[in-house]
Amino acid sequence: MFTIIGERINTTLGKVKKAVENRDAEYIIQDVKKQTQCGATYIDVNAGARIGHEKEDMKWLLKIVQEATDLPLCLDSPDPLILEMAYALVDKTPLVNSISLEKERFDSMMPFIEGKKCKIIALCMDDSGMPKTSEDIINRAKTIVAELEKIGMKRDDIFVDPLIQPMSVENNNGTMAMDAVKAIMSDLKGVHTTGGLSNISYGLPKRKIINRNFLLMMMANGFDSAIMDPLDKDIMAALKTGEMLAGHDDYCMNFLKSVRAGDIEA
Amino acid sequence: MFTIIGERINTTLGKVKKAVENRDAEYIIQDVKKQTQCGATYIDVNAGARIGHEKEDMKWLLKIVQEATDLPLCLDSPDPLILEMAYALVDKTPLVNSISLEKERFDSMMPFIEGKKCKIIALCMDDSGMPKTSEDIINRAKTIVAELEKIGMKRDDIFVDPLIQPMSVENNNGTMAMDAVKAIMSDLKGVHTTGGLSNISYGLPKRKIINRNFLLMMMANGFDSAIMDPLDKDIMAALKTGEMLAGHDDYCMNFLKSVRAGDIEA
Repeated sequence: MFTIIGERINTTLGKVKKAVENRDAEYIIQDVKKQTQCGATYIDVNAGARIGHEKEDMKWLLKIVQEATDLPLCLDSPDPLILEMAYALVDKTPLVNSISLEKERFDSMMPFIEGKKCKIIALCMDDSGMPKTSEDIINRAKTIVAELEKIGMKRDDIFVDPLIQPMSVENNNGTMAMDAVKAIMSDLKGVHTTGGLSNISYGLPKRKIINRNFLLMMMANGFDSAIMDPLDKDIMAALKTGEMLAGHDDYCMNFLKSVRAGDIEA
Repeated sequence: MFTIIGERINTTLGKVKKAVENRDAEYIIQDVKKQTQCGATYIDVNAGARIGHEKEDMKWLLKIVQEATDLPLCLDSPDPLILEMAYALVDKTPLVNSISLEKERFDSMMPFIEGKKCKIIALCMDDSGMPKTSEDIINRAKTIVAELEKIGMKRDDIFVDPLIQPMSVENNNGTMAMDAVKAIMSDLKGVHTTGGLSNISYGLPKRKIINRNFLLMMMANGFDSAIMDPLDKDIMAALKTGEMLAGHDDYCMNFLKSVRAGDIEA
């Protein structure tokens, strides 16, 4: 089962920032309801864009978002203090976004996670910067998963993010991510892999087409979650077709249901 | 570089059969010109549908097709006598479609191939029938490649066809083909993999969408050729995007050129 992390409640997006500024609950509620209807597994909530307001904005958003949906949330902040507060305010077991191997972030996140009931996104980032080869990604994934297992986390609760980088920067950035996902899903059996797809197309035209074609290529290597927009009909159609082709849709039932609902179009 | 085997000159297609029956050279010429313009690497020529007429139909088609294009041809017949005649009539080194491990076909094809300058499609089929697991496919690929190497064929001249089977029949038919391609491209380094994509969607709706999404998933596993319709704009757009994402398009130049030409659309 593919895990869709709905990315739309993020204050770096202009409309969301404005809605948060104006405490426009209705905008947030409608968006979250749509993400829920369209098949999100988690609703990501990021309140980081209004500098100095993250705490109060996150608090307000969590109340509104939970009124609008029964889905669990993905708590998205680099700040463990914000995450600590947010964790206390959610009803369902959240996905925490994120931990990495960067010393400062790692050291502050580990005590926050330890003993808590949560799932976590683990970024393959360390203090030397972005990974340069698939081996970098795989090694970092192994290190961070081992650390998380030491404090009692189960593999099923860990979503490894290989850190997708733009094709416009380096010709092998696509295969680097694909090869890493293939190895992680095989060498660290039981973990999930996730990530923001849209980085792949940064600097290129026709970004949505690139993103959804890349999703299929990543799924062919075992990628089983993405931080994405569930309201994008084309990427959702690609996802459902990909799930069927990857053998995760018994008797093609979900695919056929989507076709009948008019959701699989050219 | 992805090898596109243009599949349109095939007498099992009603319009082509009629054109061949009526010796309508203009229809064939226009179609072949379009396939050439759209980026075919080979033009497949199959004259098998009019029972008892394959020899004269193939002869006529080869003359017309070679008038219409400078591309090499893919000679498509199960009959070595037809292939022998066809081979003598082509100007450029052809791709021969096909040999398999079925005893009768294998025994009659090997003497035809030996010593000839040609490339060949090798079907992973033997007398026990269609493959049932990816290991079946991989083992058959290894056997047939070894046999072809014994008679002096180079791996670069061999296109292994894993035999794509429908998702509607068995939930793992997609992953069976993907896993097999991954292993073949790694264990038999230097060979190509090809096949007819459309079998994957047999019995399901929205076949073209399934076919092109499957192409991307196969390409993510190293698939580097397909028997396909180069006039299908959507699958060609998926192919170009997939080539770029697979790292086979330096500086994304071909992708960007296709975007400028209006060939990459939603």
